[in-house]
Amino acid sequence: MKEVKAYGAAANDAPLKEINIERRDLLDNDVSIDITYCGVCHSDIHAKLNDWGNAKYPIVPGHEIIGKVTAIGKDVTSHKIGDLVGVGCMVDSCQECSACKEDQEMWCENGSTSTYNSKDKHIGGHTLGGYSKEIVVRDEFVLQVPTNLDTKSVAPLLCAGITTYSPLKHWKVKKGDKVGIVGLGGLGHMGIKFAAAMGAITVMITTSSKKAKDAKRLGATQVIISKDKDQMKEHNNTFDFILNTIPVGHDVNPYLALLKRDSTMCLVGAIEPLENIHGANLILRRKNLAGSLIGGIKETQEMLDFCGEHNITSDVEVIDMQDINTAFQRVQDNDVKYRFVIDMATL
Amino acid sequence: MKEVKAYGAAANDAPLKEINIERRDLLDNDVSIDITYCGVCHSDIHAKLNDWGNAKYPIVPGHEIIGKVTAIGKDVTSHKIGDLVGVGCMVDSCQECSACKEDQEMWCENGSTSTYNSKDKHIGGHTLGGYSKEIVVRDEFVLQVPTNLDTKSVAPLLCAGITTYSPLKHWKVKKGDKVGIVGLGGLGHMGIKFAAAMGAITVMITTSSKKAKDAKRLGATQVIISKDKDQMKEHNNTFDFILNTIPVGHDVNPYLALLKRDSTMCLVGAIEPLENIHGANLILRRKNLAGSLIGGIKETQEMLDFCGEHNITSDVEVIDMQDINTAFQRVQDNDVKYRFVIDMATL
Repeated sequence: MKEVKAYGAAANDAPLKEINIERRDLLDNDVSIDITYCGVCHSDIHAKLNDWGNAKYPIVPGHEIIGKVTAIGKDVTSHKIGDLVGVGCMVDSCQECSACKEDQEMWCENGSTSTYNSKDKHIGGHTLGGYSKEIVVRDEFVLQVPTNLDTKSVAPLLCAGITTYSPLKHWKVKKGDKVGIVGLGGLGHMGIKFAAAMGAITVMITTSSKKAKDAKRLGATQVIISKDKDQMKEHNNTFDFILNTIPVGHDVNPYLALLKRDSTMCLVGAIEPLENIHGANLILRRKNLAGSLIGGIKETQEMLDFCGEHNITSDVEVIDMQDINTAFQRVQDNDVKYRFVIDMATL
Repeated sequence: MKEVKAYGAAANDAPLKEINIERRDLLDNDVSIDITYCGVCHSDIHAKLNDWGNAKYPIVPGHEIIGKVTAIGKDVTSHKIGDLVGVGCMVDSCQECSACKEDQEMWCENGSTSTYNSKDKHIGGHTLGGYSKEIVVRDEFVLQVPTNLDTKSVAPLLCAGITTYSPLKHWKVKKGDKVGIVGLGGLGHMGIKFAAAMGAITVMITTSSKKAKDAKRLGATQVIISKDKDQMKEHNNTFDFILNTIPVGHDVNPYLALLKRDSTMCLVGAIEPLENIHGANLILRRKNLAGSLIGGIKETQEMLDFCGEHNITSDVEVIDMQDINTAFQRVQDNDVKYRFVIDMATL
């Protein structure tokens, strides 16, 4: 076991502060990583605050991890010392169930191990995330990061990136499709970049006209202000796919109206009750409302490779580790464009 | 123009009674039909009561029409005098838009013509449905009815049949799939028959244990009582597809929980607001909530042929035309197994 510096919280109402944690000794299929950057995901805040009722303390958040390989177990062949690598939301799964075999480890029937706040099957207690100097992760859950990208801006791809890339691919977004991105935050700004890179006519749908300019800079062809009923009506029944990144419960009916027959709106943010959905909005024109969460490891690697090829990264604001509590507050205030990334050298 | 006896209502609060209506003279691509049976759909009641706010009076309901061809226009080649035929929910569409070209006439971009209560583009006013002795319908919207089936029990296939057959086919239900049918009424009882005939492990999901025996008679392999939380929990994440026929707004969350990852629940009844859907029930395991309404003409013919092959009809109670107002009340009281059919000889 090795003692490693980290930032964690002792309780839901305690601030994050420096603590020492332990990382396991390297197993034969383990990779040891010196963390250089870690993104700040809204989930980190929900988890720390115990919003989902399952928090284990001390909690060390962080599942958008970038670093360098410093050591590998003897069975590791896909990564070598010095490689630039990433770790996302998962660090283990059974590898044997139908979900794992279909590269959908996040739905592992025996339960995947989250990067933090999951049972740690090696050293007991619970897993501790990327707000730390080092991490040891099973080979299969370590991703290769393209070296042509700005490293710090890659970190959010490990969660915000795959969360938006996966549904766009699953619902087969292709060149010329009219794709709506609802909500412009950490997820939405990645959704715009990916949909545009896939060749879609990418339409930002937002409540705020102030976001229009930025949406276009990120790649949106067009911006619809969702509060403008006439403007929304013009686009009814015209969208091939809508990616809805709003992180809270809301009225999805006006967005469902925008879909073409047989098309889908996928939720990736709202893990909350939605306001009353009118059955007619699904029954008329056979529309679909779906959801999606992150993506499997194989697809995460595909997403990183796609980013390397298309020169896609997240728009980030780099912070010192010591500023994390302020950053949490600013995420809650929706005051970030579009993702905080911690420079782990400051820890 | 020809004067024909029918049953219609002069206002939403007036009873249905005998009236005379006019049918157009035969056009070159028209088929004239002597109606022998007409099913009573819950929509007939909603329409008559103006529940959807678009009723035109006098209203003559009826879109589950069975009859014999008595005359054909000179361009009609697919039907001949004496044929046993059916007419469903539509009697015309543009035949030129993308929806029509993809055999989805119900979503005709120029507006399909409903069998009743739509604008009548031939003789003005609005279309009048199957609660009448005769009807004249455009060739393409007349279906051939298999002659090996009990004719009166075929009528409900034209709406209840296609409404349940279409989503089972669209979501590719196949042999061995575990398929849930929620709600046992006019739609649900057809859903069970079709899913069973497609080789699915067909599970009736109902609030009422009293319906279990009948569900099994209709073809269900198993019955789950939805009020029994433990029983529901046992089946969580196990269904390949769920057809939800509940005709009113309700809490869909417990049913979404039953779906396997990447699976769909399709609504065919609830054209009403649904209670708060929790986003997590879609986001976790990438589940889908969809809707579907009737089906195209090509698929309706396919459904009728499937019924001929598998000897499937609706369970009906035949009534005299004069008993229609009582029948409407009994449908509203959910007191019918499972569909009323009017014997048009009694008019």
